[in-house]
Amino acid sequence: MTAAPRVEIERKFVLTEPPADLPAGEPIEQGYLAIAPDGVEVRVRRRAGRSTLTVKSGPAHVRVEEELDIDDRRFEALWALTEGRRIAKTRHLVPLERGVTAEVDVYGDALAGLVTAEIEFASTEASAAFIPPDWLGTEVTGDARYANQSLALAGVPG
Amino acid sequence: MTAAPRVEIERKFVLTEPPADLPAGEPIEQGYLAIAPDGVEVRVRRRAGRSTLTVKSGPAHVRVEEELDIDDRRFEALWALTEGRRIAKTRHLVPLERGVTAEVDVYGDALAGLVTAEIEFASTEASAAFIPPDWLGTEVTGDARYANQSLALAGVPG
Repeated sequence: MTAAPRVEIERKFVLTEPPADLPAGEPIEQGYLAIAPDGVEVRVRRRAGRSTLTVKSGPAHVRVEEELDIDDRRFEALWALTEGRRIAKTRHLVPLERGVTAEVDVYGDALAGLVTAEIEFASTEASAAFIPPDWLGTEVTGDARYANQSLALAGVPG
Repeated sequence: MTAAPRVEIERKFVLTEPPADLPAGEPIEQGYLAIAPDGVEVRVRRRAGRSTLTVKSGPAHVRVEEELDIDDRRFEALWALTEGRRIAKTRHLVPLERGVTAEVDVYGDALAGLVTAEIEFASTEASAAFIPPDWLGTEVTGDARYANQSLALAGVPG
């Protein structure tokens, strides 16, 4: 699957703890091969038996996200190059009001204790109108320290 | 084509000028998406109508080089992310003694004037026994400043 260049309208939150009634989740392992000073990142990810290599643009560029499928052998070879730049998390999809879904990520390993939620909206109006329930905790939309690439390199913000 | 992990035995030279009888060459454009502090690099390259994305390990790792074919649309999208980290060169294959071939790279754009040659050997013995002809100029084997990733970022060594 290739995401065509587009604008993502997202809000992001840091939860104090996972919600009690969290649906079953899907483990995601991702590691960064390299991150450029301008934010271009290249990562490999394994999720639900599918492995991908993804290149994402940084904030200075028109949004680009290219995802390439890779086989298990290639994943393992590339994974070895991501040591010290890895994230393990379990993603839970939590339905909210008006067809909106929160992707609740419960982090593990070096980031254990961190729980975030990302919500994507169809329009800026829908994003602005959304009133987050209390369990979503603190909003960190736009806070670069919570980008996965920062979490992988720098850990949980102090 | 995937290069299996292996040791490359190479010697590299900086020429003062291209040899007079240089065979026709092949233009190569390559740009670095990102380079990690440990030397892991991710580049895209277009050569002879074929576009690839390649991930190479740095010196700290067991050697890994994984090359993925990408189509024109993907190449263009990714190429846009390599601004300021590009190399253009023309590669000429020059046959030498005993079946050995020199890859003579004549650089263009910001690196115009730079000419290098790389020679790969089948064994350390063959490498040690090779006596470079005068036209190969100065040996720079192992000089990281002449790695393409350094040339792309820092330009011709002063």
